Amino acid sequence: MSELIPLPQTLIPFLEPYFPNESNTNHPKKPFVTLTYAQSLDSRISAKPGTQTKLSHLETKTMTHYIRTRHDAILVGIGTILADDPKLNCRYPETKSQPRPVIIDPNAKWKYQDSTLRKICAEGKGLAPFIIVDESAGIDSESHNCVLEQGGKYVSLPLIGNTSNWAIILDSLRQLGIKSVMIEGGARVINDLLDFNKFSEKPIIDSIIITIAPVYLGIEGVQVSPSSRVDITDVKWWQGEQDSVLCGRPLQ
Amino acid sequence: MSELIPLPQTLIPFLEPYFPNESNTNHPKKPFVTLTYAQSLDSRISAKPGTQTKLSHLETKTMTHYIRTRHDAILVGIGTILADDPKLNCRYPETKSQPRPVIIDPNAKWKYQDSTLRKICAEGKGLAPFIIVDESAGIDSESHNCVLEQGGKYVSLPLIGNTSNWAIILDSLRQLGIKSVMIEGGARVINDLLDFNKFSEKPIIDSIIITIAPVYLGIEGVQVSPSSRVDITDVKWWQGEQDSVLCGRPLQ
Repeated sequence: MSELIPLPQTLIPFLEPYFPNESNTNHPKKPFVTLTYAQSLDSRISAKPGTQTKLSHLETKTMTHYIRTRHDAILVGIGTILADDPKLNCRYPETKSQPRPVIIDPNAKWKYQDSTLRKICAEGKGLAPFIIVDESAGIDSESHNCVLEQGGKYVSLPLIGNTSNWAIILDSLRQLGIKSVMIEGGARVINDLLDFNKFSEKPIIDSIIITIAPVYLGIEGVQVSPSSRVDITDVKWWQGEQDSVLCGRPLQ
Repeated sequence: MSELIPLPQTLIPFLEPYFPNESNTNHPKKPFVTLTYAQSLDSRISAKPGTQTKLSHLETKTMTHYIRTRHDAILVGIGTILADDPKLNCRYPETKSQPRPVIIDPNAKWKYQDSTLRKICAEGKGLAPFIIVDESAGIDSESHNCVLEQGGKYVSLPLIGNTSNWAIILDSLRQLGIKSVMIEGGARVINDLLDFNKFSEKPIIDSIIITIAPVYLGIEGVQVSPSSRVDITDVKWWQGEQDSVLCGRPLQ
């Protein structure tokens, strides 16, 4: 049983050129990376730090789950985990396999044993997470045991206390068999990724899919804005009942 | 001769429901107010303060001039004047009458005699401005003479040193015969107007038309974001070659 409304069928051909496929997931050092999130007109993804704000229309919520069906993994930062306690599974009706949740948690703050994700996983509705932590982080033993029992793992990498070591993170995910990853937020992860993409030797973001909702969340909201200009190419727009969706590829 | 590309014809029925007309411009205390501007994905209207950034595609530039044909006046703040030195006329091919430029310049900073607008006006390509200043402002006599000679005027109002006294400004414009005004920016004017609209007794913004360009301008850019949440109703989206355009009406 799905709690989602049906997917608008025009989204299928609209999204397809921006998805990972047999021919674009052969990079040896990184998965295909899709950056996707929903924002307000004023580029906020939530009304204030540490809270979740419902932004997108039900049809674009369904879209998110449809996009999840096409990726091996879903990646979010610890801020999103602590603010939303998300399910991070795929609830699209025709889902054949669940995406792997990947959490960037440099300081190992997450108490996995208390999370919704743990329950979802225990109910067989999703996979246990891969949790990326800094090499120096002290991992809570109870969380560690829970994650391992459910088939997930902690991955210790030299993150130097921040989330911006994307080349190492993506290489590590690729070595773990993940050929495509959908990066969903939060703002710190998105801004960081856009900055890293701009200044890396070769681009790391393959596709970008942004839902824009017709609302201003206001100046106190949590904003997406990279440190400098980023142009988008191969742009297409889709319009829904309420929201507009942009697909494209960031230029360096 | 127009330097503009042709208007995409699908914009005509798309915009029409959001325009002033015979039946919606009868308010005795204010003109019909259309708020319109172009922004980046990250809600920036320019890359840094005091500079102009080309954001919109040529077709949405043509749209701006088409919208100008449908309004009695164009209103901008002094920040836009000083950053862009704009022409503020209508260069759409079928233009029958020019809109009146209205400048919000509380402290009477503008040296009109040195402006592009003065030249445009001298060449018969646009109207002289109405310049809204605070009652306490000292007006430069040369600017004053230039404005008067060309048929414009200074309008002294109790602005108390800021731009937010929108009820008084709009009432004054209506008494000057302006039945519709297109408010084009900059960020301070837009944010101020959205805030005023939210907290005024009755809404003052009748339509909102926002062009969104597929680029991030980055964190140092000049941003549109009101002080608190503003929802938009009666939403429609149009998609162009590069940009998306939202039409709607802000809720209180």
